[in-house]
Amino acid sequence: MKADTQHFRCEIEEGIATLRLDRPDRKNPLTFESYAELRDWFRELHYDDEVKAVVFASNGGNFSSGGDVHDIIGPLTRMSMKELLAFTRMTGDLVKSMINCGKPIIAAVDGICVGAGAIIAMASDIRLASPEAKCAFLFTRVGLAGCDMGACAMLPRIIGQGRAAELLYTGRSMSASEGEAWGFWNRLVEAGNLEAEAVEMARRIAAGPNFGHMMTKTMLNQEWNMSLEQAIEAEAQAQAICMQTADFTRAFEAFVAKKTPVFAGD
Amino acid sequence: MKADTQHFRCEIEEGIATLRLDRPDRKNPLTFESYAELRDWFRELHYDDEVKAVVFASNGGNFSSGGDVHDIIGPLTRMSMKELLAFTRMTGDLVKSMINCGKPIIAAVDGICVGAGAIIAMASDIRLASPEAKCAFLFTRVGLAGCDMGACAMLPRIIGQGRAAELLYTGRSMSASEGEAWGFWNRLVEAGNLEAEAVEMARRIAAGPNFGHMMTKTMLNQEWNMSLEQAIEAEAQAQAICMQTADFTRAFEAFVAKKTPVFAGD
Amino acid sequence: MKADTQHFRCEIEEGIATLRLDRPDRKNPLTFESYAELRDWFRELHYDDEVKAVVFASNGGNFSSGGDVHDIIGPLTRMSMKELLAFTRMTGDLVKSMINCGKPIIAAVDGICVGAGAIIAMASDIRLASPEAKCAFLFTRVGLAGCDMGACAMLPRIIGQGRAAELLYTGRSMSASEGEAWGFWNRLVEAGNLEAEAVEMARRIAAGPNFGHMMTKTMLNQEWNMSLEQAIEAEAQAQAICMQTADFTRAFEAFVAKKTPVFAGD
Repeated sequence: MKADTQHFRCEIEEGIATLRLDRPDRKNPLTFESYAELRDWFRELHYDDEVKAVVFASNGGNFSSGGDVHDIIGPLTRMSMKELLAFTRMTGDLVKSMINCGKPIIAAVDGICVGAGAIIAMASDIRLASPEAKCAFLFTRVGLAGCDMGACAMLPRIIGQGRAAELLYTGRSMSASEGEAWGFWNRLVEAGNLEAEAVEMARRIAAGPNFGHMMTKTMLNQEWNMSLEQAIEAEAQAQAICMQTADFTRAFEAFVAKKTPVFAGD
Repeated sequence: MKADTQHFRCEIEEGIATLRLDRPDRKNPLTFESYAELRDWFRELHYDDEVKAVVFASNGGNFSSGGDVHDIIGPLTRMSMKELLAFTRMTGDLVKSMINCGKPIIAAVDGICVGAGAIIAMASDIRLASPEAKCAFLFTRVGLAGCDMGACAMLPRIIGQGRAAELLYTGRSMSASEGEAWGFWNRLVEAGNLEAEAVEMARRIAAGPNFGHMMTKTMLNQEWNMSLEQAIEAEAQAQAICMQTADFTRAFEAFVAKKTPVFAGD
Repeated sequence: MKADTQHFRCEIEEGIATLRLDRPDRKNPLTFESYAELRDWFRELHYDDEVKAVVFASNGGNFSSGGDVHDIIGPLTRMSMKELLAFTRMTGDLVKSMINCGKPIIAAVDGICVGAGAIIAMASDIRLASPEAKCAFLFTRVGLAGCDMGACAMLPRIIGQGRAAELLYTGRSMSASEGEAWGFWNRLVEAGNLEAEAVEMARRIAAGPNFGHMMTKTMLNQEWNMSLEQAIEAEAQAQAICMQTADFTRAFEAFVAKKTPVFAGD
């Protein structure tokens, strides 16, 4: 898995990839280039077996300030519809590639996490934040709608329809404590320990069963708009597949031997 | 936009329409006539540019006691199936017209908010309530099912499937503090300030971008049962449309000039 | 309705069926036989008029330890794909039969409630728990995926997508207080009163209107992945049906006579 990325930082160690945007002096805005490279990186991850889990970390006390006003918003105001749709599809494709990469993603959010940055956090599977995290879906502040990169679909499923509507219409900041109470953040961790905790959680998840984790991630997406009965049949098939992996047998044998199972991902 | 309504009160000021049912001595029950007139008013609002946001307010310390027992329930017990379906479709059409009107609706709920009144609050986008608000889906109390006007679809998305099931089966009252903790109420405000706060929130939203708000409202509805990937594509298209509005350019130019943007809705 | 069950205990009294798994010394694991018999019992319940509500209770301080490691997991590791799919479909069929039985189910969860036990609690309509309840979706611990018996569809709708993802990936225990704050448990009740409170709630629900309750349960399932507008039309039809029941008239007449309605279920 490629770690020598150009428009964001990537470190890969013991199966954990830690990513972060890298313009801390400007609170890590996204650019056309970082969107595209992130999209491609997560697409490649789908086919990779080395990286088992991803931590999307902060940098210099902030997660991301979203699409850069000068580098992105300015040019967008001058684009044709064809170019605009190419852009909004590229940003949407980043979310799609995160959802489809098959590996759990843990966001570790410190400080500013707004606009497309908030969407990246939302497209992650698990979200840890520091008490200083400030998250806002501020698309309305730049004259746009709250429907960006899947926000109107994802945010209501995470925090409920009513709270999502308020955040999307007003663009107001969600405090860290609101976000924890509402289930947006899975847990708050002091900034100094935030990334270490996220990496530790990623390690426990990366210990496997990674085929199972891939299937969990797949089904959380697949079942988004199935009927409940379709979902139950889909899970019967998915779990039957998992029951033919060696990791299932490894777990049983470890249990019988009163040992902790060591998973191998097949 | 018509303000001389017959079966509910309507005041329109600076782009904000404030509605309220108007039989405070009986806690503002709905009647056949007020259902129909509300439905028609919200349908007309879809084509209107003057009203930017709606406050659905309380009256005399209560929001609404729902369908009137004598004026509505009595006659219903004597109707044919054709007439009954015409009635249940009319009430459902009120919810549909609220959802499709294209303008954010803020409910300001004081006191009793039950039955169809609770549905009107639920069909609003944002809900403020006083600490005295008592909300109940009491359809079971009159021998009916909890599935009324979309309740079994909307309530689980706002407060979660488990809490919704309890309220819908038992018809019990949800206290104001439960409703706030569960995300049914966006915020509790003392009764004396409730309507003023709702109007103030409506003003901030009505300041725009109103084309964007219309699109946010549209997509929150459209994406209800899309797959996540369909939703992302739908938002790519919707946001690309918004990027060709003048309000998007106005926001960018205001930012460059270090000013607050003034939106015009186009 | 059959009460002489072989692989779980069943008591039926005054329209309330109280079920419990019955191997308290091993925290009530499920077996191939109890899965199948539960599935068949809930299927039969669909056609029954005697039982109005179900309490799925605990036994000896625990709800269920899920699929038994020796009796179930061992044999599964040696099965063909055909046999595995037959098993996962049988477990899924238990959830389907609980959802389709037409009667509200109240889980009363004390102590351990894990794996398939957690799914049974989740497939119930209302969930009470003791402060000692420990609930975990520990499928990953046995080398499998979190998608089991509909978990990836149901859990996000109950507690939100973010919290569900963490529990499903990590298999960690959800404490009773977390479960209450997140809406998984409707209420916590001291273990000594837990079953009595669940039975009392079942009695109030069983007092009717039972045709209405059946329709509420039906629509909570039917509307799972409808569009909001489809759901509103579906409820217009469902509620119009309920308005032609005698229980609706009974409620109106009791109201006029200032009495408490006595429902008869038709």
